[in-house]
Amino acid sequence: MPDPIAFSGGVAGAWSVVRQTAVRGAPLESVARIDKGARPVAGAVWALSGVTSNLRYTHSTEKRMLDATPSVLGRPSATRAALIPITKSAAWWALAQDERRTILEEQSRHIAIGAEYLAAISRQLVHCRDQSGAVFDFLTWFEFAPADESRFDELLVKLRASPEWQFVEREVDIRLEKAG
Amino acid sequence: MPDPIAFSGGVAGAWSVVRQTAVRGAPLESVARIDKGARPVAGAVWALSGVTSNLRYTHSTEKRMLDATPSVLGRPSATRAALIPITKSAAWWALAQDERRTILEEQSRHIAIGAEYLAAISRQLVHCRDQSGAVFDFLTWFEFAPADESRFDELLVKLRASPEWQFVEREVDIRLEKAG
Repeated sequence: MPDPIAFSGGVAGAWSVVRQTAVRGAPLESVARIDKGARPVAGAVWALSGVTSNLRYTHSTEKRMLDATPSVLGRPSATRAALIPITKSAAWWALAQDERRTILEEQSRHIAIGAEYLAAISRQLVHCRDQSGAVFDFLTWFEFAPADESRFDELLVKLRASPEWQFVEREVDIRLEKAG
Repeated sequence: MPDPIAFSGGVAGAWSVVRQTAVRGAPLESVARIDKGARPVAGAVWALSGVTSNLRYTHSTEKRMLDATPSVLGRPSATRAALIPITKSAAWWALAQDERRTILEEQSRHIAIGAEYLAAISRQLVHCRDQSGAVFDFLTWFEFAPADESRFDELLVKLRASPEWQFVEREVDIRLEKAG
């Protein structure tokens, strides 16, 4: 079943904002803390909501590889996190399924690149394009140990250089650390 | 952009219910009229909401074929309609993208069968699995002239006999005519 996930930016929440960067397009209002839960918290400056959902591009051989290294959230060692909301262009969404798959994997190796980092970087993909009033298509969430943040940056450099990223029209990169 | 669509069952709306059948799984409470709009109407007995969205399985060659016969809603001759909400099983949603595509098209010819009827049967696919609280995965909507209802039934017989339909665990078939 799709699971609701909400990120609420404000002064409350388990994650302190270390820095907040508008990579492409409009920024999000700066906040001190982010709460991640099933629903938005009252009094938030902004709230981004969506759902976990079924796989959209992953083929069965790739799924078997990913299932062998399940992404575990909430590891005690994972005291750093990143919330990266993304919006893709109308041109992306107007493509047929096979065209989007070709760009995402055969051209950009999105699944393969991500898999190289799976052991160190846990992640969760939250879909929000089909939610009413949503301004982002996806809310991507990553958790990792402080020592792995440079590997996470390396992963982002590879993805942002890919043909798929030419269809990204808004991207905000929010780095977080677990509030003490 | 995803477009919100709501079907409200009750005593108001432009479509009169001719018959309402639980094809598989639980029925929906019987209603006299259905309103189709951007949002639910007040006082409805039930409301089913979702959004139009991007293609999930259609390949580019199929998209070109479909684009050549665009589905036009609201034709004056299309005085009959059908609203068929559908829920697929957890087993379906747990499949990888290529496995779902293979069942849907290579095994079941869903897109090809639908295309044979496109000139007579206009349709709209509303996604709701990713909406919070949704009980159906899809709300499928069809419009046709009274003389084409038997062709529409033929289309349903073909789809319901397909391997894809083994994954359908709830289906309600509501037949409608334009209220005078």
